[in-house]
Amino acid sequence: MRELEERIRRDGQVLPGGILKVDSFVNHQVDAALMHRCGKELAARFAALGATRVLTAEISGIAPALTTALQLGIPVVYARKAKPITMPDQVYLTLAPSHTKGRMVELIVSPEYLATGEKVLIIDDFLASGSTILGLARLAEAAGARVIGIGALIEKVFEGGREALKPLGVPIESLARIVSMDQHSIEFGA
Amino acid sequence: MRELEERIRRDGQVLPGGILKVDSFVNHQVDAALMHRCGKELAARFAALGATRVLTAEISGIAPALTTALQLGIPVVYARKAKPITMPDQVYLTLAPSHTKGRMVELIVSPEYLATGEKVLIIDDFLASGSTILGLARLAEAAGARVIGIGALIEKVFEGGREALKPLGVPIESLARIVSMDQHSIEFGA
Repeated sequence: MRELEERIRRDGQVLPGGILKVDSFVNHQVDAALMHRCGKELAARFAALGATRVLTAEISGIAPALTTALQLGIPVVYARKAKPITMPDQVYLTLAPSHTKGRMVELIVSPEYLATGEKVLIIDDFLASGSTILGLARLAEAAGARVIGIGALIEKVFEGGREALKPLGVPIESLARIVSMDQHSIEFGA
Repeated sequence: MRELEERIRRDGQVLPGGILKVDSFVNHQVDAALMHRCGKELAARFAALGATRVLTAEISGIAPALTTALQLGIPVVYARKAKPITMPDQVYLTLAPSHTKGRMVELIVSPEYLATGEKVLIIDDFLASGSTILGLARLAEAAGARVIGIGALIEKVFEGGREALKPLGVPIESLARIVSMDQHSIEFGA
């Protein structure tokens, strides 16, 4: 998606440690109109698959998941990283390494909102190593739901997430595919 | 907003300790279409005030803040509860008591995205005691920005938040005003 690539090139910032900072339009500050167009584009790419739920992880997956779900006319479920007191004792829980936190985080979904037979579209802001998305896929599987597609705003191709997700056997779409980046330039692939 | 009241009456659940669980359509699972209509309604109520930023707190404020901001054509900034590594060392930080967590939480905004002269509309899912919203107002003030309005999806009138926010001297709008609730019934006021 050309608009997103241009925005990343203009406002993205490559930090030491291979972190791409997009806090001015994706995380922390969200460009609502851009996020709406990204959600439209992701929804269009998966429209034929009949998803019944969008599944994402808090916090930064919420915005793209919400705009995608809005276009598809289905609800979003966002996995929690801490169990709120409103959640039942029996939950689906898995662990996934967090790149930006440097430790394992829990991903928790209540069985109330993820059930057998659901067709789940996983949406997240980043596809990097794929570990968060694999964690979400495990939650869906634990619930007896079926993952039918995976979408991300930004893919860091060089971190190999697409390979890691291949065993799931579902279509993977990302709107901006970064093939290389350093403090001076960000290169996109098709 | 009649639709939201009816949904709360149908799917909301009053838990011990005065917690209203709306995890099936506001938190955890989000009804994207409903959230879009709530955002439209909040945006309409504040349209004349010329807001330049919507400010909210992660996590559950993000969805209503995003749909409101989309209608107003402005960005959202969501205060973080932990400082990510992408944030500069110098930040605006305040503490606010969390009702659902039973402890104080940090609310952190980067000076990059909240500046002098901004006109800030604060949006959150709940207006209860008002302490989170007061925390957001302190962050805006610290940044030299001006709060011009406060909007919430659900107001727990009996927790007195509206009184606590009165000194800010700005319009306060909520889409569903709960005047009393227990495990058997939820009563709304005008």
